[in-house]
Amino acid sequence: MSSTHLPAGLARRTASLSSSAIRDLLALTARDDVISLAGGLPATDLIPVDRIAAAAEAVLQSPDAVQYCETAGHRTLRSVISARESAVRGGVPVSTDTVVVTHGSQQALTLLAQALIDPGAVVVVDEPAYTGALQVFSIAEARIEAIEIDADGMNTAELERRLTAGLRPAVVHTVANFHNPRGVTMSEPRRRHLAALADHYGFWVIEDDPYGEIWFAATGSTHGTGAPPPPIACFGDRVIRLSSASKILAPTLRVGWFVAPPAVCAAVELLKQGADLCGSSMTQLMAANMLGDTAWLDAHLAILRGEYACRAKALTDALDAEFSARLTVSRPTGGMFAWATFEDGTDTDELLAAALEHGVAFVPGSAFASAEQYGRSLRLSFAGSTPAELAEAVRRLSAAHASIRTH
Amino acid sequence: MSSTHLPAGLARRTASLSSSAIRDLLALTARDDVISLAGGLPATDLIPVDRIAAAAEAVLQSPDAVQYCETAGHRTLRSVISARESAVRGGVPVSTDTVVVTHGSQQALTLLAQALIDPGAVVVVDEPAYTGALQVFSIAEARIEAIEIDADGMNTAELERRLTAGLRPAVVHTVANFHNPRGVTMSEPRRRHLAALADHYGFWVIEDDPYGEIWFAATGSTHGTGAPPPPIACFGDRVIRLSSASKILAPTLRVGWFVAPPAVCAAVELLKQGADLCGSSMTQLMAANMLGDTAWLDAHLAILRGEYACRAKALTDALDAEFSARLTVSRPTGGMFAWATFEDGTDTDELLAAALEHGVAFVPGSAFASAEQYGRSLRLSFAGSTPAELAEAVRRLSAAHASIRTH
Repeated sequence: MSSTHLPAGLARRTASLSSSAIRDLLALTARDDVISLAGGLPATDLIPVDRIAAAAEAVLQSPDAVQYCETAGHRTLRSVISARESAVRGGVPVSTDTVVVTHGSQQALTLLAQALIDPGAVVVVDEPAYTGALQVFSIAEARIEAIEIDADGMNTAELERRLTAGLRPAVVHTVANFHNPRGVTMSEPRRRHLAALADHYGFWVIEDDPYGEIWFAATGSTHGTGAPPPPIACFGDRVIRLSSASKILAPTLRVGWFVAPPAVCAAVELLKQGADLCGSSMTQLMAANMLGDTAWLDAHLAILRGEYACRAKALTDALDAEFSARLTVSRPTGGMFAWATFEDGTDTDELLAAALEHGVAFVPGSAFASAEQYGRSLRLSFAGSTPAELAEAVRRLSAAHASIRTH
Repeated sequence: MSSTHLPAGLARRTASLSSSAIRDLLALTARDDVISLAGGLPATDLIPVDRIAAAAEAVLQSPDAVQYCETAGHRTLRSVISARESAVRGGVPVSTDTVVVTHGSQQALTLLAQALIDPGAVVVVDEPAYTGALQVFSIAEARIEAIEIDADGMNTAELERRLTAGLRPAVVHTVANFHNPRGVTMSEPRRRHLAALADHYGFWVIEDDPYGEIWFAATGSTHGTGAPPPPIACFGDRVIRLSSASKILAPTLRVGWFVAPPAVCAAVELLKQGADLCGSSMTQLMAANMLGDTAWLDAHLAILRGEYACRAKALTDALDAEFSARLTVSRPTGGMFAWATFEDGTDTDELLAAALEHGVAFVPGSAFASAEQYGRSLRLSFAGSTPAELAEAVRRLSAAHASIRTH
């Protein structure tokens, strides 16, 4: 058989996915001789395997853990999430009924796209954008409008200008905390502005927040701790907030969630019922067991923040030492990524090929653009490597850079 | 906010789901005072919780079990599945590359529908049909054609008649083994016929097989053991075979899979990458640990088959004793369901309301029809109750029946 037996619609819906964005990126990480700064994986050595095993053992005492569970998620987990979500919103109550648990936050994005986006509808995204979001909106056949982000996140003044000029998006998607790939965090005034625009123009904001808990302690921070500003959801009613256990506990749980008004929850629940009936009661109860153990979780998050901050500094210090003014490097204040831009005209697609030969991988900026751009930028993940590995990775990158600049 | 802020497309796509089929059925099972024969859940008391806990402990020794895994599924599990699939096909080799692991077989159905069905395309289903499949094809905006099944499964002569008359389906979906809800198994001649029709007319067969392993030992069986005939996939190339660990191990693993030609696997993998990135490496490795332990699995399946056979007999014997000629009851030879039809004009939608008052639940036949019919039929699951509970359930059903017949 040939793929010509697949319907025309599939080809149309997946046309822009021919590069298989995330899958190809993950494939780069597989070679043993490559130090990969390409992946979006959390640090394997910091995943609390023993605590996860203890959680598995604890929840499997109950037959509740082995059967089907409610489509919207196990109530025990939804209750733990609503309490945590209330805390991050400064104590504003969050009803358990407004929480839906999904198979990672990627499934939340997919189901929300099915619920909120008709083919041809406009979706506004960050420029550069999370590739997984671009993929979902492309499958949903949305018309994508990109708005560049700067050091304060999505430029909401530019968004307002386009709204005034007639743009009518169904959804605005943004990663407001420790942006993937840019690393920046949206300022509080812009959060207020975006929520007000959503109320005024009647669009939904998808506030995609997988990294918000991974902030680095910062002297001079306006928030004291280094924690990001309050969620956009604090400032308006048309905000759907996504998060996940993947980056703070483990991807293997496949536990993500969103918090949204009841009509959105009901629509997504209906779609999820058709999509996969329900999630795993076992991994959901394991997530509840760990997220609800606040003493343990606080200690675990403190370790994660400290280690990630240390790795971020090791990477950016090494890049500065190796490249100095030829490369502008972001200063991560949280999350998993540094963003860097060559000032010497280096093409990062070309650099990647050389880098793989030298045993190091990263994601070129072009992967995050909805159009052709960021050709001189790259995303580097500091999460999965030790400071020594990061230093070696930068040495290899420098050798790769030298090899293409001297051709 | 009101649901009017959701787009028109969502209402269109979900219009036929307003009864929230499966969710509402599951809701019936929740009341403590109700013996539910309504659910499609496997027996909780037969789920091997200790073996599951041992599998969790074993796989969590490896860091591989806590990270993201490949979108098509962990290779260890795909390899175990391909070996089992080869065995059920009489030793014909099945390549690991033709196996895709999904979040339960419901997700396989959803992603296959996205890959194979454009809006308005024709999908042929069993009449009566698995409600979860009806839901998926409805979300895909397929035009549904139903073909009645009899004691030998889907009537392929009727299908051929409609094909000759011009029907051009994209997909034919059938549950060929121990049908849900009818309980019947498709005969081998019809399997051959269906596969030949698929080759001739160029449609895909989705052979949905969650229950094929749960056969009851039968004296006089043409296959010696009571096992069903060879899979439809043995007889043609345009067959996509779905199965799941939910009914033989535990629903909580959320491990389903399908076996299909490479172009179909590639298309679904692309869609799954957008849908949820990947499954849980932990629960996939746990499934591999158990499905690959053939000595243990064979013993476990022997227990399951013996217990389910015993429960099926307890239910049907009690129904015969209580209702005699007023109710025609199927003789299950495997699976989880008995199908029964009242000969005295009893309306089973009406009976359900009375039954719940009397503390027993079932699914009325109308839930499985694409149009109005089966109003005198009902599906009863014998899986989740002991023989004593089943006897009590039938007494309650009889009392409910008497209460509405004597009004």
